[in-house]
Parts: sequence; C-alpha cells; structure tokens
Amino acid sequence: MNVLIVHAHPDERSLTAALKDLAVTTLASQGHTVVVSDLYAMKWQSAADFTDFDGITGPDFMHASGTATETGRLSPEIRAEQQKLRDADLVILLFPLWWFTVPAILKGWIDRVFTYNFAYGAGLGRYGSEGPLAGKRAMLATLTGGRAGHYTPRGVNGPIDDLLFPLNHGLLHFTGFDVLPPFVEHSAVHLTDTDYRRITAHFQERLETAFTTEPIPYRSESSADYTAVTHPGASELAPGLEHPGTTGFALHTHPTSPNP
Amino acid sequence: MNVLIVHAHPDERSLTAALKDLAVTTLASQGHTVVVSDLYAMKWQSAADFTDFDGITGPDFMHASGTATETGRLSPEIRAEQQKLRDADLVILLFPLWWFTVPAILKGWIDRVFTYNFAYGAGLGRYGSEGPLAGKRAMLATLTGGRAGHYTPRGVNGPIDDLLFPLNHGLLHFTGFDVLPPFVEHSAVHLTDTDYRRITAHFQERLETAFTTEPIPYRSESSADYTAVTHPGASELAPGLEHPGTTGFALHTHPTSPNP
Repeated sequence: MNVLIVHAHPDERSLTAALKDLAVTTLASQGHTVVVSDLYAMKWQSAADFTDFDGITGPDFMHASGTATETGRLSPEIRAEQQKLRDADLVILLFPLWWFTVPAILKGWIDRVFTYNFAYGAGLGRYGSEGPLAGKRAMLATLTGGRAGHYTPRGVNGPIDDLLFPLNHGLLHFTGFDVLPPFVEHSAVHLTDTDYRRITAHFQERLETAFTTEPIPYRSESSADYTAVTHPGASELAPGLEHPGTTGFALHTHPTSPNP
Repeated sequence: MNVLIVHAHPDERSLTAALKDLAVTTLASQGHTVVVSDLYAMKWQSAADFTDFDGITGPDFMHASGTATETGRLSPEIRAEQQKLRDADLVILLFPLWWFTVPAILKGWIDRVFTYNFAYGAGLGRYGSEGPLAGKRAMLATLTGGRAGHYTPRGVNGPIDDLLFPLNHGLLHFTGFDVLPPFVEHSAVHLTDTDYRRITAHFQERLETAFTTEPIPYRSESSADYTAVTHPGASELAPGLEHPGTTGFALHTHPTSPNP
C-alpha cells in the first residue's frame, strides 16, 4: 500500500520527528511504500493566496481555487501534493497540538492543497463516504504538552475527540476518507525513558494495524439521516436517531450500540 | 479605547476586507484608536519556527519560545504584535472560516505571537480571568460560505459555538480576555444588496456595542469549579455544577439560568 505522512514539527530532535522516522521504518518493513511531506524541511508556504492560481483572482477565494483546479492552472507545488493524495491508500497527519489544532504550516497545507474541485465540489459526488477521496484511510497523530486530565469529557480544554472533530469529520470524512481513531499522547514533554518506550510502542502498534483498524463510524451525509429541519437546505440530523442525551459533534457518529 | 483588528483575507474586494474597513471607520467615529494588523498586506510569515528566537532552539518549541520571550530575544516582528496586544482594550480577529477555523496565516499569527511567558506561563498568574491579558476584550468575527443550517445544534458541520470554542475558550479566555459572543454570518457568497446591507448593519451594531456587550460567561479555571476528578493534576469540572444533560464544551460556560 502507499502511505503519505505529512509531518509538521520544526525540530528534528522532537518526539514528533522521532515518530515520523518510526513510521517510515515501521511501514516500510511491512512492505508499504512511504512518502513523507516534511513541511518544515520543504519550507512549505503556509499562507493560502492567489499565487497558486496562475493569475486567477476574485473576492471568493474558494471559487478561485476551484477555477484554477478545473482549468489545470494550480501551481506545481500544489499539484504535487494532490498527486501524493491521489496515490495514497493511507494518509497520516503527524503534528504537535498547538492551540488545540494543527500548527499554521500544516493548516496551510490543508488550506492550499484541499482545493475546491479537487477535494470537494458540486461535480464530485456527495460529501462523506462518496467524496472524491473515498476509499482512502486517514489518521491524525498528535502530541500535546498538557495533562491527559485536561482533555477528558469534563476537562478544562474540552474532550480531545471534540477538539479533533473539525479535522476528523469536517476535513477528512467530508472529503471521503475513512477516518481512523486518532493517535494521541498527552504530557509529551520531559519524557522519561519509560514514557518514550510506551509512546513509541503505542504508535508502532497503531501503524501496524492501520489497515485493519475500524474507522470512526461517522454517518454518511448522503444517507437519509440528514434532512432540513430548522432551515431550508440544511443538512441536520433527523430527530430521534441518537442515543437520548447525545448532543454536539457526537451526534454525527453512529451509536456504538443499538438505539433503544 | 484602543482597538486592534487582525484581518486575514487575501482579497481586498472580499466581504471580509469590507468589514475591516467598516470596523476602522465605525470605531474611529466613536473616538477609539484603531490599529490594523492586515496579515496578507504585511506578508506575515505563518510558520512558527526558530527564526523568531535569535538562535534559541530545542525539541520543545513552547519552552524555546518562553526562553526567547523572557530573555528579550524575540524577533522585532513578534515584539511589535505583542505590544499591539498590550496596548489594546479590544482585539477583533476578522477572517473567513476555512476548514472550520482560522486561515493558516492567522493561525500563524496566533502560533508566533502568543508565546510562552507572554500570553501564558507559570509565572503569569492562573489561567482564565487572571491570565496575562486580563482586562481586555476580544471578539471573533467570521464569515462562512456554508448554509446557516449546517451549523445548528444538529447541523452536519457541528454547532458554530463548538467549532469556535478552541479559539474563544482555548486561546482567548485561557490567556485572560473577556470573550464576546462571536459575530458570524453564513452563506457569505453571491450576496444580494439586501444581504450586504443586513450583514454590514449587523456588524456595525456589534462594533458599536463592543464595550458594553456581556462576555461569554466562561467559568474561571482558578475557581473551585475545577478539580482533579479522574486524573491526578487534572482540571476537570466538578460533578453536578452543570444543568443536567449538558456535555462537552458547553460545560465550561456558566448556566445562563440558576442550576436547579
């Protein structure tokens, strides 16, 4: 299989960079072909602007990106990353959690590479499991400096699954990926040797099972689960499909046990 | 009062840019002093890296930023933005919602400017209402291309307040700001003149009331509301403080009516 790793830490001595190296060797030893987009090493331009669009401009940035995409005028840098995505069977986004999401350089990879008419768009099928990147797997792998107890269901930072929902569901599921449960380790600073061995063993296990792990059971937007309830044209979860008491982002995951 | 507007749209003809101009004239006409950090016009560097730290490096990026901050070695570009924050009574982050959060260039402003030992840190008081930026107000102002009905409590994108929680609570409340309810308009593409007048009137009203609007009633992390429940050292909301049935990010806002 083909694996794309997108890595976003500025220091090669970091734990994040060590996990990137571990992923390359682990996946290669399983016979996979691994490609790494090492964003800091590539001096990746983060800011999405019109320089990618060969002269196409306009106040609606998304549609300018769509026009550049469908007319073949995207910059070579963007087309190269899009080709890596097309070729990939599994995409791993590997990053430190900065202000509860990806670092700017990785946000810039997302903003620039996931153009309209490439990753989503009216002519590309319905969103979710029928999106243009359907059939591929994706996994977030992230380290936080905070304590695990700050990211629990009642933790002050909010539940980690909710913090990652815009990436897992809004970006990856929306464009068609089967999204694996994220790899997350907290308190990833001042590690003891024992911590280091535990974290690397955990990541290695996740890598070795990445093609067999069950994806997060997000509901398909094209299913009858979604309908316009409060607003015309809205996609809202139809009443009564969730476990009683479920609210917020968790509504968009199929209940793990049958609805009573 | 002093107002800092941080603006992040690449096209001067965009609605976001028009709202930036409207904010400058509206706030100036009220007698406020307005400073704009127009990130695309400034060609702001998005990627946070060690070039800001005058030679200080290390695998723990946050602590490198803290060392550079406390030893006065941050780059002039970062110190200038930090001074704007110190001077501001109100900060407005004005941006299109790209992939459910800020564009990369604005994430890069956050990643680079909110350094350890400036915006947060062990010696700077407890987080939340006692954080180093306490006494200032902040407001997100954002436009989405999606339908309002996709961002409702049951909408497929998730509730807009939950999508903005990592910015409103994780960044702004955490560092001490009083956080105003966000200004949000959906379907902000292909506007009719009526739409345009409605949106600009709404924004103008929010600007004119920015110093009197009640902030979001986030709980203070230094209050007795937080304690270690499931993990040693965790800050987790103590049991029973919420309205029954409240889960997720909403736990961290005081109930708007008395708890039964």
